[in-house]
Amino acid sequence: MDRVKTYIEGFDEALGGGIPKGHVILITGTPGTMKTTLTFSILYNNVKHGAKGLYISLEENYEDVKGAMADLGMQNLDDMELYLLDVSKIRLEHKEEETSKNWLEVLTRYIEQRVKVNKFDLVAVDSLAALYSLYRMENPRRELFHFFGFLRSLDATTFLISEVPSGENGRLSRYDEEFLADGVLVMRHFEMGETDVQLRVRCVKMRRAKHEQGYFALMQNNGSFTITRPISE
Amino acid sequence: MDRVKTYIEGFDEALGGGIPKGHVILITGTPGTMKTTLTFSILYNNVKHGAKGLYISLEENYEDVKGAMADLGMQNLDDMELYLLDVSKIRLEHKEEETSKNWLEVLTRYIEQRVKVNKFDLVAVDSLAALYSLYRMENPRRELFHFFGFLRSLDATTFLISEVPSGENGRLSRYDEEFLADGVLVMRHFEMGETDVQLRVRCVKMRRAKHEQGYFALMQNNGSFTITRPISE
Amino acid sequence: MDRVKTYIEGFDEALGGGIPKGHVILITGTPGTMKTTLTFSILYNNVKHGAKGLYISLEENYEDVKGAMADLGMQNLDDMELYLLDVSKIRLEHKEEETSKNWLEVLTRYIEQRVKVNKFDLVAVDSLAALYSLYRMENPRRELFHFFGFLRSLDATTFLISEVPSGENGRLSRYDEEFLADGVLVMRHFEMGETDVQLRVRCVKMRRAKHEQGYFALMQNNGSFTITRPISE
Amino acid sequence: MDRVKTYIEGFDEALGGGIPKGHVILITGTPGTMKTTLTFSILYNNVKHGAKGLYISLEENYEDVKGAMADLGMQNLDDMELYLLDVSKIRLEHKEEETSKNWLEVLTRYIEQRVKVNKFDLVAVDSLAALYSLYRMENPRRELFHFFGFLRSLDATTFLISEVPSGENGRLSRYDEEFLADGVLVMRHFEMGETDVQLRVRCVKMRRAKHEQGYFALMQNNGSFTITRPISE
Amino acid sequence: MDRVKTYIEGFDEALGGGIPKGHVILITGTPGTMKTTLTFSILYNNVKHGAKGLYISLEENYEDVKGAMADLGMQNLDDMELYLLDVSKIRLEHKEEETSKNWLEVLTRYIEQRVKVNKFDLVAVDSLAALYSLYRMENPRRELFHFFGFLRSLDATTFLISEVPSGENGRLSRYDEEFLADGVLVMRHFEMGETDVQLRVRCVKMRRAKHEQGYFALMQNNGSFTITRPISE
Amino acid sequence: MDRVKTYIEGFDEALGGGIPKGHVILITGTPGTMKTTLTFSILYNNVKHGAKGLYISLEENYEDVKGAMADLGMQNLDDMELYLLDVSKIRLEHKEEETSKNWLEVLTRYIEQRVKVNKFDLVAVDSLAALYSLYRMENPRRELFHFFGFLRSLDATTFLISEVPSGENGRLSRYDEEFLADGVLVMRHFEMGETDVQLRVRCVKMRRAKHEQGYFALMQNNGSFTITRPISE
Repeated sequence: MDRVKTYIEGFDEALGGGIPKGHVILITGTPGTMKTTLTFSILYNNVKHGAKGLYISLEENYEDVKGAMADLGMQNLDDMELYLLDVSKIRLEHKEEETSKNWLEVLTRYIEQRVKVNKFDLVAVDSLAALYSLYRMENPRRELFHFFGFLRSLDATTFLISEVPSGENGRLSRYDEEFLADGVLVMRHFEMGETDVQLRVRCVKMRRAKHEQGYFALMQNNGSFTITRPISE
Repeated sequence: MDRVKTYIEGFDEALGGGIPKGHVILITGTPGTMKTTLTFSILYNNVKHGAKGLYISLEENYEDVKGAMADLGMQNLDDMELYLLDVSKIRLEHKEEETSKNWLEVLTRYIEQRVKVNKFDLVAVDSLAALYSLYRMENPRRELFHFFGFLRSLDATTFLISEVPSGENGRLSRYDEEFLADGVLVMRHFEMGETDVQLRVRCVKMRRAKHEQGYFALMQNNGSFTITRPISE
Repeated sequence: MDRVKTYIEGFDEALGGGIPKGHVILITGTPGTMKTTLTFSILYNNVKHGAKGLYISLEENYEDVKGAMADLGMQNLDDMELYLLDVSKIRLEHKEEETSKNWLEVLTRYIEQRVKVNKFDLVAVDSLAALYSLYRMENPRRELFHFFGFLRSLDATTFLISEVPSGENGRLSRYDEEFLADGVLVMRHFEMGETDVQLRVRCVKMRRAKHEQGYFALMQNNGSFTITRPISE
Repeated sequence: MDRVKTYIEGFDEALGGGIPKGHVILITGTPGTMKTTLTFSILYNNVKHGAKGLYISLEENYEDVKGAMADLGMQNLDDMELYLLDVSKIRLEHKEEETSKNWLEVLTRYIEQRVKVNKFDLVAVDSLAALYSLYRMENPRRELFHFFGFLRSLDATTFLISEVPSGENGRLSRYDEEFLADGVLVMRHFEMGETDVQLRVRCVKMRRAKHEQGYFALMQNNGSFTITRPISE
Repeated sequence: MDRVKTYIEGFDEALGGGIPKGHVILITGTPGTMKTTLTFSILYNNVKHGAKGLYISLEENYEDVKGAMADLGMQNLDDMELYLLDVSKIRLEHKEEETSKNWLEVLTRYIEQRVKVNKFDLVAVDSLAALYSLYRMENPRRELFHFFGFLRSLDATTFLISEVPSGENGRLSRYDEEFLADGVLVMRHFEMGETDVQLRVRCVKMRRAKHEQGYFALMQNNGSFTITRPISE
Repeated sequence: MDRVKTYIEGFDEALGGGIPKGHVILITGTPGTMKTTLTFSILYNNVKHGAKGLYISLEENYEDVKGAMADLGMQNLDDMELYLLDVSKIRLEHKEEETSKNWLEVLTRYIEQRVKVNKFDLVAVDSLAALYSLYRMENPRRELFHFFGFLRSLDATTFLISEVPSGENGRLSRYDEEFLADGVLVMRHFEMGETDVQLRVRCVKMRRAKHEQGYFALMQNNGSFTITRPISE
């Protein structure tokens, strides 16, 4: 089975070679756990190796994401096959209409068309919480079943960013997306002793992959991520 | 009393010889605890030894389940008496009609007919949460009483997969299915120290069996599972 | 005051001689804690010593209970004065009518008549949760007060099985039945270290008895139960 | 200020001489913590020393309470100035009418008249939870303010038994009666190590008394209670 | 900035000289933590030093409060400029009318007039929970904003007693009064080992004061309070 | 990228040079954690270095804030380009009209105009909870998305104070503002042993900054803050 590399040093081995192509992956964590950066870096590095990527930002605007990524060494986006859709801009400009739209449908149609036309290999949606704030689902699990089914039917690997508020320790998603997803990567701040905090990543679930179960310390340097086995206190 | 072997090395002994035939078994756990794989392997190995099995997938599609199982060494499904019903496909094709159906009734009729005609010895439903997302019960415990009663009336042993969201530590089911079931196997990730995570299985309940009560470490290798007594930290 | 023996080796002494005759006893615990077996064994052993018993099963059917008990060495039920009422069978046959009945009233009338006619010394209802799923009470505590009052007015000792879902640590009942009952026996799985699980029993409350307060390890062998003082880790 | 002795050996000293006369005292605890016995013993022993007592039982019947107390050595109630009102009997006989009554009002009128006529020095109501199951208050805190105000206006010391369900650790009352009461005695089961359970009592609050704050082990022997400083594990 | 002394020995230093004049202070704690006594003693001691005080009791009556304070050595209230308003008496006498009144408004008008006429320097309201039981606010935070604003506009320092039920560990107020208040003093029972309980006080917040952050043991002797640094176990 | 200095000694380095200009920052903490003082000091010190600041107080009045800041050494506000808007005053004067206004809109218009006219570099809103008590949002996350989008569109750096009630350990915001914000600073009281309490600050999130993750002890002296690495017990 083909694999999409994460280009996180050490992590592709821990995943048993990378993420199985075509999977729908949930990237989940509390605020400040670098969900956007990590996801973006996966798309960025794959595009640098010849893939095509689509990053859909529902809340942060184009300039902010681009600038943030450039800071971290992910530059020259305009020259790359990495397309950044800024839904936040559309929302801010069309504030009045936004409540009447079925945004899940809009997003589905948009992704469908763009993947068909542009042959994107990787798609990211940042974030599910932003999507839910735009559109209130009648029966979340059923509608999400169809959304996940649609994403899986694409010829692309998808990343969905899930925001978990601080203080709800252990929850990974709001509507059990963790069961619908093919893979779940959780980012977590570990308090070390009373003062230090370390960022860690764990692959909770990855269908069709022999992955490691434990936590890895996650470091970022110039836009490239590395994992190491954390040393316990 | 006749027993259905799980073919998990070491576990049939821990169950006092296997699962009593005709039982309705709950397989429960948080995401990534291999509920699908374990359940499928029980059917697969029984079919290899001459039984007939029906695996009903309400969310994952046929190709994904089949592919995942093939990866793990469970191949040649097409040549075996292991039938895989892909409800997810029906759902994706008939998206509009799905909300109007009493899926619990549909499932009951389908299983009844197939077991009568095909003489299935083992039936698995993956998952209860998916079923509940399709059909909202008026009085869950009463309707489930009748569903469990129906399953018990069949000449088959049934496995129901129950998904417990991360962060609800200790819950085994949504509507107390744990009391209606004849047996409950719980799969759980144990955090070992600060970084390692070990998968374990425990038989919480097994009517008419002298089973062991504690946790076992669960390992999978080429589609065959083994348990061992975990070494504490 | 007369006592009903539990015939659990060592436990009658811990209860100060047994359960006071005429008491309404709550048997409570999470799934797999042998509530049904323990309660049945109390009736079985009393009947073997000359008493008459009525076991009312609201969810498990006659054959299953009988078979399970036979497995554990409690055989020849048909030749004994131990009557097993299978409400589950009635429910499965009359599925349509069940919602319209006031099952609490039905149960009350049935028990009243049978105890009057057959002079039962012990009555067990398995379980309260099943009863509540059949009939939704307007004012639970008031209706239960009258139900408990009725049971106490009988010339029999009653056992009510209360199911507590896993994950609700410490709760003993849903509608404070623990206050209405004359006695409460709680069954509990203790995790010993990281892997072992031990079944224990504790008498939380027993009116008119000088009972011990602590936990006892509970073992079952060939249908006869024994308690011992657990050795702490 | 005059004091009502509890006749619990060692406890009157811990209360700074006993309970101030005229106080409304909350006796609170989970099931099996001997709230009824302790409260009854306070009335019993005061009556033996010349006082007059009224014990109002809303759920347990006359014979059961009397029998239980006799077991514990509190005998000859019929020859004493300790009147036991059995509301449970009235309730069981007039099941139909009970829902239409304002039981808080009924209770208030009854107590008022009896205290005026019989000059009771001590009154106990067992229990508040039973009272609430009979009569649903519109604005609990306001109605209870008036009920407590009424009790305080009597020439008697009152004891109100409050039942706290297991599993709600730390709560003392349902509608903040703990703030309205002049004194609060809490009874609690302490798990000692993994197997032992010890009953303890603590005076959380006692207006107009210099009382000790900590827990005491509570023992009962032949109807007389003693406290000791518990030895920690 | 002028300061109101608490006359709690050692505490005024811990507050950086006392409570800033004109502040609205929340005195919060579970039952039995001496909120009333402590607050009353602050008024009493200030009045002894020449200030004028108004103590508004919404639940406890005049005689009880006066008696309790006299017990603790705070005597001769009638000769002092410490006025005690007994709302509880008004409530008990006018039970019927009480539900129709906007008590927050009534209280506001009363305090306004009395402070203007009598020039009170200190005002205490005992308690907020009693006030809320009398009058249900539409939008608590907005109405309380105006109530706090009104109190701050007075030429007086105000003390509001807030009752926190046992078992809600860590909460300080019901409607976030802790944010509206200028200062918050929390009283807390600390369980020391398994049997002892120590009363402690902490200044969580005091605008415009350099106060200490930690807990102090609080002792009372003859109506005068002292704090000490608690010795840890 | 330009940075706004916090002028908290040691903290700008921990933030990787300060707060990125134009960011919307959430300042969050329980009562008494100096949120107002810290935020005000950031504005004050920036203004002293040539910037222009607008501090909007929704609950505390002008004199109180000004006085409190003067106490801490932040004086001569009237001579500085630090404008303090006292919404609390407007609210107290126009109590009747306040409920009919869309205060989020009012605030948006006000800030927009003032920033355009006065060229403010820093804006602070104290607090979000006060804003929510004035105006109940239909769909909080959507309305806040637009509010945050508006703030980000300004040529200013914004600080929003978020109040977290004691007892809700770990929550940072009410409507997931923590995800919408570009940066989150959390202030927290740490209980050290049983009696001491230390104030600490942590940067949970700061987009476009390489900031440290851990906790720092926060000290204040004459209006200037300093951080140090806390020494663990």
